[in-house]
Amino acid sequence: MTTVNSEKLSSARFAEATDAFVEEFTASVNFDQRMAQQDIQGSLAHAAMLCKIGILTEQELADIRKGLAQIGGEIERGEFVWSVQQEDVHMNIEARLTDLIGIAGKKLHTGRSRNDQVATDIRLYLRDEIGNILGQLQRLQLALLDRAEQEADTIMPGFTHLQVAQPVTFGHHLMAWFEMLSRDRDRLLDCAKRLNVMPLGAAALAGTSYPIDRFMTAELLGFSRPSNNSLDSVSDRDFAIEFAAAGSVLMMHLSRFSEELVLWASAQFDFIDIPDAFCTGSSIMPQKKNPDVPELVRGKSGRVAGHLVSLLMLMKSQPLAYNKDNQEDKEPLFDTADTLINCLRAFADMVPHVKAKRENMYRSAKRGFATATDLADYLVRKGMAFRDAHEVVGQAVRLGLQSGRDLSELTLAELQGFSATIGAEVFDILTLEGSVAARSHIGGTAPATVRKAICEARQQITG
Amino acid sequence: MTTVNSEKLSSARFAEATDAFVEEFTASVNFDQRMAQQDIQGSLAHAAMLCKIGILTEQELADIRKGLAQIGGEIERGEFVWSVQQEDVHMNIEARLTDLIGIAGKKLHTGRSRNDQVATDIRLYLRDEIGNILGQLQRLQLALLDRAEQEADTIMPGFTHLQVAQPVTFGHHLMAWFEMLSRDRDRLLDCAKRLNVMPLGAAALAGTSYPIDRFMTAELLGFSRPSNNSLDSVSDRDFAIEFAAAGSVLMMHLSRFSEELVLWASAQFDFIDIPDAFCTGSSIMPQKKNPDVPELVRGKSGRVAGHLVSLLMLMKSQPLAYNKDNQEDKEPLFDTADTLINCLRAFADMVPHVKAKRENMYRSAKRGFATATDLADYLVRKGMAFRDAHEVVGQAVRLGLQSGRDLSELTLAELQGFSATIGAEVFDILTLEGSVAARSHIGGTAPATVRKAICEARQQITG
Amino acid sequence: MTTVNSEKLSSARFAEATDAFVEEFTASVNFDQRMAQQDIQGSLAHAAMLCKIGILTEQELADIRKGLAQIGGEIERGEFVWSVQQEDVHMNIEARLTDLIGIAGKKLHTGRSRNDQVATDIRLYLRDEIGNILGQLQRLQLALLDRAEQEADTIMPGFTHLQVAQPVTFGHHLMAWFEMLSRDRDRLLDCAKRLNVMPLGAAALAGTSYPIDRFMTAELLGFSRPSNNSLDSVSDRDFAIEFAAAGSVLMMHLSRFSEELVLWASAQFDFIDIPDAFCTGSSIMPQKKNPDVPELVRGKSGRVAGHLVSLLMLMKSQPLAYNKDNQEDKEPLFDTADTLINCLRAFADMVPHVKAKRENMYRSAKRGFATATDLADYLVRKGMAFRDAHEVVGQAVRLGLQSGRDLSELTLAELQGFSATIGAEVFDILTLEGSVAARSHIGGTAPATVRKAICEARQQITG
Amino acid sequence: MTTVNSEKLSSARFAEATDAFVEEFTASVNFDQRMAQQDIQGSLAHAAMLCKIGILTEQELADIRKGLAQIGGEIERGEFVWSVQQEDVHMNIEARLTDLIGIAGKKLHTGRSRNDQVATDIRLYLRDEIGNILGQLQRLQLALLDRAEQEADTIMPGFTHLQVAQPVTFGHHLMAWFEMLSRDRDRLLDCAKRLNVMPLGAAALAGTSYPIDRFMTAELLGFSRPSNNSLDSVSDRDFAIEFAAAGSVLMMHLSRFSEELVLWASAQFDFIDIPDAFCTGSSIMPQKKNPDVPELVRGKSGRVAGHLVSLLMLMKSQPLAYNKDNQEDKEPLFDTADTLINCLRAFADMVPHVKAKRENMYRSAKRGFATATDLADYLVRKGMAFRDAHEVVGQAVRLGLQSGRDLSELTLAELQGFSATIGAEVFDILTLEGSVAARSHIGGTAPATVRKAICEARQQITG
Repeated sequence: MTTVNSEKLSSARFAEATDAFVEEFTASVNFDQRMAQQDIQGSLAHAAMLCKIGILTEQELADIRKGLAQIGGEIERGEFVWSVQQEDVHMNIEARLTDLIGIAGKKLHTGRSRNDQVATDIRLYLRDEIGNILGQLQRLQLALLDRAEQEADTIMPGFTHLQVAQPVTFGHHLMAWFEMLSRDRDRLLDCAKRLNVMPLGAAALAGTSYPIDRFMTAELLGFSRPSNNSLDSVSDRDFAIEFAAAGSVLMMHLSRFSEELVLWASAQFDFIDIPDAFCTGSSIMPQKKNPDVPELVRGKSGRVAGHLVSLLMLMKSQPLAYNKDNQEDKEPLFDTADTLINCLRAFADMVPHVKAKRENMYRSAKRGFATATDLADYLVRKGMAFRDAHEVVGQAVRLGLQSGRDLSELTLAELQGFSATIGAEVFDILTLEGSVAARSHIGGTAPATVRKAICEARQQITG
Repeated sequence: MTTVNSEKLSSARFAEATDAFVEEFTASVNFDQRMAQQDIQGSLAHAAMLCKIGILTEQELADIRKGLAQIGGEIERGEFVWSVQQEDVHMNIEARLTDLIGIAGKKLHTGRSRNDQVATDIRLYLRDEIGNILGQLQRLQLALLDRAEQEADTIMPGFTHLQVAQPVTFGHHLMAWFEMLSRDRDRLLDCAKRLNVMPLGAAALAGTSYPIDRFMTAELLGFSRPSNNSLDSVSDRDFAIEFAAAGSVLMMHLSRFSEELVLWASAQFDFIDIPDAFCTGSSIMPQKKNPDVPELVRGKSGRVAGHLVSLLMLMKSQPLAYNKDNQEDKEPLFDTADTLINCLRAFADMVPHVKAKRENMYRSAKRGFATATDLADYLVRKGMAFRDAHEVVGQAVRLGLQSGRDLSELTLAELQGFSATIGAEVFDILTLEGSVAARSHIGGTAPATVRKAICEARQQITG
Repeated sequence: MTTVNSEKLSSARFAEATDAFVEEFTASVNFDQRMAQQDIQGSLAHAAMLCKIGILTEQELADIRKGLAQIGGEIERGEFVWSVQQEDVHMNIEARLTDLIGIAGKKLHTGRSRNDQVATDIRLYLRDEIGNILGQLQRLQLALLDRAEQEADTIMPGFTHLQVAQPVTFGHHLMAWFEMLSRDRDRLLDCAKRLNVMPLGAAALAGTSYPIDRFMTAELLGFSRPSNNSLDSVSDRDFAIEFAAAGSVLMMHLSRFSEELVLWASAQFDFIDIPDAFCTGSSIMPQKKNPDVPELVRGKSGRVAGHLVSLLMLMKSQPLAYNKDNQEDKEPLFDTADTLINCLRAFADMVPHVKAKRENMYRSAKRGFATATDLADYLVRKGMAFRDAHEVVGQAVRLGLQSGRDLSELTLAELQGFSATIGAEVFDILTLEGSVAARSHIGGTAPATVRKAICEARQQITG
Repeated sequence: MTTVNSEKLSSARFAEATDAFVEEFTASVNFDQRMAQQDIQGSLAHAAMLCKIGILTEQELADIRKGLAQIGGEIERGEFVWSVQQEDVHMNIEARLTDLIGIAGKKLHTGRSRNDQVATDIRLYLRDEIGNILGQLQRLQLALLDRAEQEADTIMPGFTHLQVAQPVTFGHHLMAWFEMLSRDRDRLLDCAKRLNVMPLGAAALAGTSYPIDRFMTAELLGFSRPSNNSLDSVSDRDFAIEFAAAGSVLMMHLSRFSEELVLWASAQFDFIDIPDAFCTGSSIMPQKKNPDVPELVRGKSGRVAGHLVSLLMLMKSQPLAYNKDNQEDKEPLFDTADTLINCLRAFADMVPHVKAKRENMYRSAKRGFATATDLADYLVRKGMAFRDAHEVVGQAVRLGLQSGRDLSELTLAELQGFSATIGAEVFDILTLEGSVAARSHIGGTAPATVRKAICEARQQITG
């Protein structure tokens, strides 16, 4: 009961009572009680280790286990009485444990401090939350794969600068979103790998004089290893920043995804129908359907980036080791986890039901002379110099514009009027279908290529 | 009941029920209920105006007033039942009003939409909160003035690069903090001025076809004028960003203030004593007193800057007019206001009781050859060329270092050994007292100048 | 030559030579030479004041003026040789001045330090740049007013959630952008007001023992007053943050403006034509025109927000007074100013030539049952209860959808089939023209109201 | 020469000339010329692949190689004439190549677009820069290991809340910094792994109709594989954000490191001496030595965090695929790389020469009753209940405070007066040496443990 950073214990030195406002202002129990189960989990492992090295008797260990089990149940059932006077989740649980089992409850804190305890709890908590996030992420990725399979042949305009550029398949576009999320998954896994190191045993800052077995505790808690340096262990919040950074990129991706859904759901694009459950309507304007979920998710991208900045600024210039500033790490972290889980879940629920208006997509691709590039490619393959090919295509497009026809709707005679080398087979490449089919190398938009990409992706995330 | 953006009303078109998760995900009532009193305030003004232009009868107006009064009471007493199904604070109150008074409750929404209603509520709310913030800010400024007066003659080392540079008075240092806060006050006042423009009447986005009297409503609500453009009115969130920016600077100031308090409370500086109520101690290490409040406030500077980023990113690239994204403006705004009020209050409570350890400050100033600059100034005034003066001072400092004495502790003979132009009056300027007294121009650290600055500052903020 | 913070002067104490890399790493002359003219301006005022209080002779003052004039010319003509060894703009100019005029050049630094000198220069610089920004901002605002006047009667769909909601006039939409910029202008003016306080005289941190006349210098430099506190004067960078915050909001506005231009220039919206000079095309796809300028401006919104964060984090937790960290304030500030000026200029050049495709706008507004709200308003004014009105409108819209007609294209008989209270005058409000004209209250979209708003706005920004 | 996004080529459609300002405003050549060597490297691989699939003849390939070699040399020697009219690095090099070798130069662009070209160049560039950063990082880590070895037995106070808490070794503290940097290294390696995927072949957005061999090009350029999706390939900027995030954490670490160096170099702490080459002094105050390098590095932490925000906001809400906004990715990326390299280099140069003032550190640790925790641990091990142990320690500390002695300076008789269980062996643990030696578990501060940690760390980073 010794390396304790045991503030708030009765101390004659404190002549003035901490007044109620400051107590409330500095307490963290209102938000850190979210880590209660992780705090109990950490205490159970710590107690088992203390027993093994002879600091707790078997009976004391049994009492602690029984007491913590009861407290865990009380918390789960919402019966636990949290007290601001007890400041944080750790002191609340410890105080209750001592009420329940007496002195053994106090002994539990031997060889640890709140500084390493909170660092351990938050890592356990975040590890769990990353698991939940990855679960929702996988649901969304699987939904994208299913939809991409269904839309592998669906042709839509591909945009650059929001201008129609070349035809692509909707399946290919869906797989672009899939790819973004794959990188997010990798980043979260890397973050989880790096955070899975155990600070417990660092005590207040320097380690403890008790012969603790940190490898045992680490194994019991599923950490890959104990941390290497006690000062670093209690002051490090990298994992929080790395998590917020990975989350910020993920949310940025969802904001782009959302932007396209909102655009496509507009009357002007009219490419998709978003299911009613994800929209709100207007009783006055029955034709109106607001894509609320994508809009809200788009907005929430700012929220997570804000938390990232908050955490970076929090840690800037802090001298080692622990400072009270660090209490501010929790709320942005919790909110980031909640936001990611909810946004991914909403999208995973929605994506299977986003209906492609295939005819509108096709018509829109058709209108933009999207195969002009293909005609030039054709001419160059026929041996024409680039400058000449370019001139021919320009003339053909002008004729199309004047006569309100796409390139594929010009006659062979008309095309040959621009270049005698053009043969009837040109129409194979001037159609939208021909254009997309030609892009069959890895990464290209050809339906067969997209199907292959889907197949490999499915193995990758479920294998 | 017309320009209503009345989502969630029964609509046959919505075949699928919005499922519970999406309902929860998109609802705002859990946080926007904080604006309930402002929502009622806005409704009362709107109703009075509708009555004046003949849309509501006197009886209907009376019923609305009675109903809203009852609802206001229910909310205050914590009896109001908030419902996620009713989505937000506006719909919750409207639904309850209709329960209470029937059809007149529904009529209240004539000529407005939730888009302009929420924009009005949030401005009313923020206006109130800025008032509260300015109140705490003034308390803190007054505390600084009192302390500065008490410490106008207290000499401490002035630092640049955290190296002792020249002596200053602690009162002067306290007034530097005061000056920072004065700019914060001005920025908040500018922000309040700019936000005090009324969006109500913009309806969904285009205004309304009812002959509303926006000047009347604006006057009733204490707005300086109705807004000039309806599209802008429902899409503008500048006031939130400007408030978060002003708050970020204020918190940055408090982080610097905190940093110095933490430094000065360290055993190595030992310049101040922070009252126990604002610290925590350790039962094991009775000599230890952690400056929790300054540390926590320093940490919270990141929080508010994070909200600022969140709001900027939220608004980036949004097309006009209202989008669901904007729902995300509230939580950062509420948390910014809370953080400012609490941090200012904690500091205003603490500052009067921060005790200067005057002897330690003095001794520390004495140790740093802080008056070397004054000696050079003296020699230059005697007509010596700069390079020569510099050489003389360098020699004198070296002698001081070797013999463990400050410049003022060298003998006149010793000094004259370096330059014959030095007279006995040099000691007037070599003392710390002489050095600070010499800086008597406006903005300087001389006690008399500081006292004058305090006097003017007091008039400025209370006048 | 005394309160100088004269680093880099020869000092026997520095046994090791500062190596070349560190010299380059810590030097600022590569970027702070941008403030050269302001540095000279500040020195001229300081010299005049020193002469008045008797520290410089008239001859010395004349020499300084002549020397600085020559240096100013050399810099303007690009002949000045900047040296990294001289570290910063101040030392470079001072060294050159001493080369040119001898000892009087050195005397110029009496009673000041680089700490207050740089704080003065940067304020002078920023004051100038805000002037330039306001100039471009006014050009853009005037361009918007001109265009709004031309488009006061042009009807387009008004969007919420990017769904067609109600008809508005394009002039009204242009005036929404104008309003945003008006707030930006006000914020910049407030920023300019607050920065126009003179730090010169604060010297290194504590003021100086010379009898300087700070009011005289302030007046010569056009500052509203000397600063109140020397410690604050050398450590304050609020003006930089406030400027970056105002700039971030401005750029956020331009990002929204850009977003709409990009949307409207797409084939799917096709509301506007952006002049060729502001786009790039493709030689292969002659129909393609990429709205490069709006896209680039949209992207640059991130840049300025980044600078804001950079400055806030820079200042977080810095103890008073001056620290070397502050050298990092300049690059974000310079880049913010450049970005604002260039983006505003590009938009001011472009806006007069953005052509509205009025027929497309009108057709798009017509397609969306945008006057459904007006029909409900009409029925309520006829005395119908809201629920009944809503039911009637719903039925009418459904008939329109089924028969491919807008509400205004239904027959009176058809409408009366839903409600006998409907009279022939209903068509006045069912047309797009009727709808916009009805919104004639202040802030509404009616052409007459918009014209009045334009007129008042013109007076406001040119008056 | 076909999938080219060949803007700026002569086009009759562009009636108006792009005026000079817009040309300058939209051009990127002033900053993207930094990627010139990577652009050439990418072109060489692309050309080899085009030759293999029969699009270029062997002669054309030879010509291209010769031309690009010449251009590479011109650029290296600073002879290359960059032109804003040619807009960017790619067009400048291509134009010069065509000047040199004629039509084959134009053919080089077959099957690629500037969209995939720039995405490839920037990845090659960043891969190189990460290599440079890791090199400097390793230098700094090695320097820390060397210093930690030298200071493994040096005792200093360990701080929490900037209050003396428990004794630690300076070697242990140095290893805390080492650990932070190890995580930075891992994050950079993960970033490098994820960025090492080749976008080339994605062409404008959809891939190309040429039978390109992307695996060959990827192998030639050292990429691990070609990218999976063409739309994603040209629109993805995750690698830039991930790099800026890793860089922001690294700079945050250096800011903490800097903060401690600045603190410790103050007269009040006086724990270290920073070598003159990394400081500036004052000619007036010879005792003054400003720790410029740590201060500047601390300030630069804001800069990189700002770039991170800038990039996140840049990408927020961008629809696929390529938009001109993306041009804004380069400057923050370049500046982040420069900042990291320079700051790491400055620290790697400095750290070997930071001298520990061991006596001052020891004295400071001695003053703080830093072994109070050890006394309590001792009593608990003797079987005393926690509350009793705590009471004993409190009494002992009070006696120490009253008599101006550390716990280890009390007599055995005095200690036994508080508790008879105390034996003479207590002095082994009451000394600073005893306290640190007792913390010998992994991660603890005991000299032997620290030496073992150094040994393992050395293997890890050089192995």
